[in-house]
Amino acid sequence: MTSPDLPDGVVRAPYRVIYGDTDQMGIVYYANHLRFFERGRCEYLRALGVSYQSVEDAGFILPVADAHVSYKTPARFDDLLSIDTAIERMSFVKVHFAYRITNERGDVVCTGSTVHASLNKDLRPVKVPQTFRDKVTITSL
Amino acid sequence: MTSPDLPDGVVRAPYRVIYGDTDQMGIVYYANHLRFFERGRCEYLRALGVSYQSVEDAGFILPVADAHVSYKTPARFDDLLSIDTAIERMSFVKVHFAYRITNERGDVVCTGSTVHASLNKDLRPVKVPQTFRDKVTITSL
Amino acid sequence: MTSPDLPDGVVRAPYRVIYGDTDQMGIVYYANHLRFFERGRCEYLRALGVSYQSVEDAGFILPVADAHVSYKTPARFDDLLSIDTAIERMSFVKVHFAYRITNERGDVVCTGSTVHASLNKDLRPVKVPQTFRDKVTITSL
Amino acid sequence: MTSPDLPDGVVRAPYRVIYGDTDQMGIVYYANHLRFFERGRCEYLRALGVSYQSVEDAGFILPVADAHVSYKTPARFDDLLSIDTAIERMSFVKVHFAYRITNERGDVVCTGSTVHASLNKDLRPVKVPQTFRDKVTITSL
Repeated sequence: MTSPDLPDGVVRAPYRVIYGDTDQMGIVYYANHLRFFERGRCEYLRALGVSYQSVEDAGFILPVADAHVSYKTPARFDDLLSIDTAIERMSFVKVHFAYRITNERGDVVCTGSTVHASLNKDLRPVKVPQTFRDKVTITSL
Repeated sequence: MTSPDLPDGVVRAPYRVIYGDTDQMGIVYYANHLRFFERGRCEYLRALGVSYQSVEDAGFILPVADAHVSYKTPARFDDLLSIDTAIERMSFVKVHFAYRITNERGDVVCTGSTVHASLNKDLRPVKVPQTFRDKVTITSL
Repeated sequence: MTSPDLPDGVVRAPYRVIYGDTDQMGIVYYANHLRFFERGRCEYLRALGVSYQSVEDAGFILPVADAHVSYKTPARFDDLLSIDTAIERMSFVKVHFAYRITNERGDVVCTGSTVHASLNKDLRPVKVPQTFRDKVTITSL
Repeated sequence: MTSPDLPDGVVRAPYRVIYGDTDQMGIVYYANHLRFFERGRCEYLRALGVSYQSVEDAGFILPVADAHVSYKTPARFDDLLSIDTAIERMSFVKVHFAYRITNERGDVVCTGSTVHASLNKDLRPVKVPQTFRDKVTITSL
């Protein structure tokens, strides 16, 4: 999923839009961009060599505290989208992901971000594990 | 949710179609009818005085083994749908739900059915509990 | 949908969470809150006496330019949610909706906002029609 | 998407399960399998060299009249699914698609079918165009 053309710390995931993603305006329904962000996030973790499962096994979870989407160009049925994902900031107890989705013509479909709280199994804030921090290259999109 | 106009054993649930349910044909996307069926199923159990939770507490679960939808009239944005649900058959280890969805104009949007296996916590087939059987009125739609 | 307990300019819509809204964390998946916001928005317009259709017939459309969600308390299967919607700001060419979703126990599930561009049929920015402006009571949530 | 291992007339599409596809049972929600079928159907048409758009340009549409799913093995988060699609029957005015979804371990997740009516732009039954019929290899799954 990574590409030599992408800056270090950015992971690209492809996604083909289906009919079920669109609404009657003939464009992708606005909630589905958050589904695409999740796909980007999973591929980001996979590229890092950490699975969601291993994150949870390490004793911490990363629930979404905040999500933002800025819509630019409508995505349409059959578009082959590129979902670029990066971690743009990490505090002791929070991880900030950034996203940019583009279509095959190079148009920016949307940009966005999600903020995740680092919690332990008892749902208390816990420092993002060092093993995780060591693997991340902080990058802006 | 029950109505004096409905035959005994049939429970009606209302649902207002949102933009997010439609696709670019301008009609409700075909997978969403299964979501509506689930809504009907939940309201059916609620009308029976059994919650999904209490079903699971009784030591059995009802995973879907089979689903069928026959599409008649497209449902559209802002339609107020009526989801009618009944149990049309119960064998020792299976429960057969039937559904009919109509719009405000009385058109049949779709009919369908789901078959659920009765399993215990170890995922082995188990007889549908008598306390559940006693509450159900077998009805065709 | 309106209630005497709600401040003027706020419209409340009910929504019962189904299984299909949850994910394997046992809580409502984070993209679905935007679906709930859309439901709130539609009921808001209905309470105003304007349908989405009539908005489009008036020659303007309101595509989403921006969406934000702040997640507070997880929503769960079978929760009966209240989606409160208000218009908190209107510029010449933009409409800012605000949302707050609460569960039956009074917990705030999330707050959020969407910004909509006022466009004519040719997708050019156009002043929000006066007939629409006249009906809206600007309110914060 | 086609593979030398697949029988002639069968097209395979990959799909990676995201969190948003699962429900609180920890498995893929039962309505989403119809979304996967649609993805298979689109890739099938693409492999045939016909796009949905070109089908519509040829003056006919293929709305779903009937859908059936038989659930075998639960699909789970992060599973890489293979969606196999074939046309198993064509009458003058109907096209019958068949599907089989498997996971990476070779387990059959589900099988199913959809029946599509061949309609012209005025929604009247119309013979499936010969140019389309000529490209299809009727195959069972």
